[in-house]
Amino acid sequence: MIEGYVKIVITGGCGFLGQKLAAALRARGTAAGPGGAQTPISEIVCIDRQTPAEELDGVTYIEADICAAGSFDALIPEDTASIFHLAAVVSAHAEADFDLGMQVNLDATRVLLERCRCLPDPPRLVFTSSVAAFGVAPSIVDDNTPVRPLNSYGVEKVIGEYLVGEYSRRGFIDGRVVRLPTVVIRPGKPNKAASSFASSILREPLQGLKAVCPVSDELAIWIKSPRAATTDLMHAHDLPPDSWPDGLRVVNLPGLTVTVAEMVAALERAGGDAGLISWEHDLNIESIVRAWPEGMITERANALGFEADESIDAVIQEFLTDELEQTS
Amino acid sequence: MIEGYVKIVITGGCGFLGQKLAAALRARGTAAGPGGAQTPISEIVCIDRQTPAEELDGVTYIEADICAAGSFDALIPEDTASIFHLAAVVSAHAEADFDLGMQVNLDATRVLLERCRCLPDPPRLVFTSSVAAFGVAPSIVDDNTPVRPLNSYGVEKVIGEYLVGEYSRRGFIDGRVVRLPTVVIRPGKPNKAASSFASSILREPLQGLKAVCPVSDELAIWIKSPRAATTDLMHAHDLPPDSWPDGLRVVNLPGLTVTVAEMVAALERAGGDAGLISWEHDLNIESIVRAWPEGMITERANALGFEADESIDAVIQEFLTDELEQTS
Repeated sequence: MIEGYVKIVITGGCGFLGQKLAAALRARGTAAGPGGAQTPISEIVCIDRQTPAEELDGVTYIEADICAAGSFDALIPEDTASIFHLAAVVSAHAEADFDLGMQVNLDATRVLLERCRCLPDPPRLVFTSSVAAFGVAPSIVDDNTPVRPLNSYGVEKVIGEYLVGEYSRRGFIDGRVVRLPTVVIRPGKPNKAASSFASSILREPLQGLKAVCPVSDELAIWIKSPRAATTDLMHAHDLPPDSWPDGLRVVNLPGLTVTVAEMVAALERAGGDAGLISWEHDLNIESIVRAWPEGMITERANALGFEADESIDAVIQEFLTDELEQTS
Repeated sequence: MIEGYVKIVITGGCGFLGQKLAAALRARGTAAGPGGAQTPISEIVCIDRQTPAEELDGVTYIEADICAAGSFDALIPEDTASIFHLAAVVSAHAEADFDLGMQVNLDATRVLLERCRCLPDPPRLVFTSSVAAFGVAPSIVDDNTPVRPLNSYGVEKVIGEYLVGEYSRRGFIDGRVVRLPTVVIRPGKPNKAASSFASSILREPLQGLKAVCPVSDELAIWIKSPRAATTDLMHAHDLPPDSWPDGLRVVNLPGLTVTVAEMVAALERAGGDAGLISWEHDLNIESIVRAWPEGMITERANALGFEADESIDAVIQEFLTDELEQTS
């Protein structure tokens, strides 16, 4: 560790959220250090199976398979102060390939935590869980709703939550877990997340392209914009350790409840053509997404200073500004 | 599989509960078969690191380390209809030896589940979780209290709960998880469970022997007798699959709330000498046990037909009858 500097590793760092986070950390230039004060960042390392389309200045990229034996020994060097563990096989993909999901979402997380345990100083570790942790639950959950996931991705994330909590209680790491809402509008292409449509039905029509919506328009989902999600990840990292007591290392993040119909109406207000959306019902996708809560009462997160987006219109405007370089 | 018969494997089968269960199954001679009806038992196999002091007639014993690579391939043959997975490193032991606890309580459970997945017919599997699943919780929990364990054993059991649930949802097994109260009065010697004292302060004085109590006498715990626990395990096994819907494969078992002082008073009513108890406070033990709930509102278990003991006096009488062959 370079005295007075922090080195940060982001797994899944070339995914869209990893890249947004790397850019935001680089722009700020600091993060909470071991003592808690904002400390200059010496290096940001993005680890991923793939390299990004465009590399960010001042960020180091390492192409690696986190499931390869012993990989973390090299990927997380002894001077690592903080880790954002974002790498994951997403929901519909983990549902389609059980073994791959378990290997990446569970086994690799365990190996990462074991590596962290070997570091000379317990690192801060931010782990992203998900709204998919909930399955058998009321449609609006709160801080005390038990997690009963109904998909492999959710189960793997929940087990990761408990592992991060336990490694923290043992003093091996200083872990913080956030349950992310569905992040909308993801840039890029549709992916294998069951919630992929939620970005696609806005993103594609805003660019004059066709999109497929596999769910009914009255379906409500719990969303957060990329900017707000990135801010939350940095905030989770920077909060003092006593914000994360043992047994309470997981927090449901604030978000917005929107129905698909409300998203489509906002698309039209922003000048998008809703006619580009083709409604092709997919029972498999709908059954996964319907099991997730429509909203959350996030008292604990609110008290800790996490914040929701203002409106679906603001979420769309953020996409136009950040990704399409349009200003209203 | 011998047509019309069921073969049952008990891991940790030479522990006191494993032996009680084997004896009870053998005495009954039947268990719910694949179709649900009571079916004759062809074989009961107890797997353990150790052999029991006294082998039960008509029970097969296999000495094996369930953590040894590939062990379950041999231990769970293809004709296994049902598994009771009781093998575990107990609470204070798992707290003292983190790696051993993870290896036995988590990794071996995972390997067992993978073996079950390879069987031609998905077996019924009963997994014992514990009151130790609860840590940050109200002193009286209910069916919807989130589990926030504060000890390694509890975390490992909770992760096992989620794995059993997921392997069941996937159709690899027909899993059922019961959260056992502290079982009192365990026969035998004190062990490394943090709750070991709860049996010891009754068991030893009832035999004119000295016992150590490491906690204050106002501490309340949630208990169940060996007979009732054994009955519960068999009932969990025999209940039809639709009693265990996805996301609800875990049930808190009914029990009795007793304070240490109430246990001591009952000891004296049964003719035991409370003067044989030496009060030697152990903060480590007390902090583990104090984090567990003092009681549970077990509506779901009650509706499923699980039952609590009548009273602490009845629990003591059971011990006198079953272990000391005294009748009142």
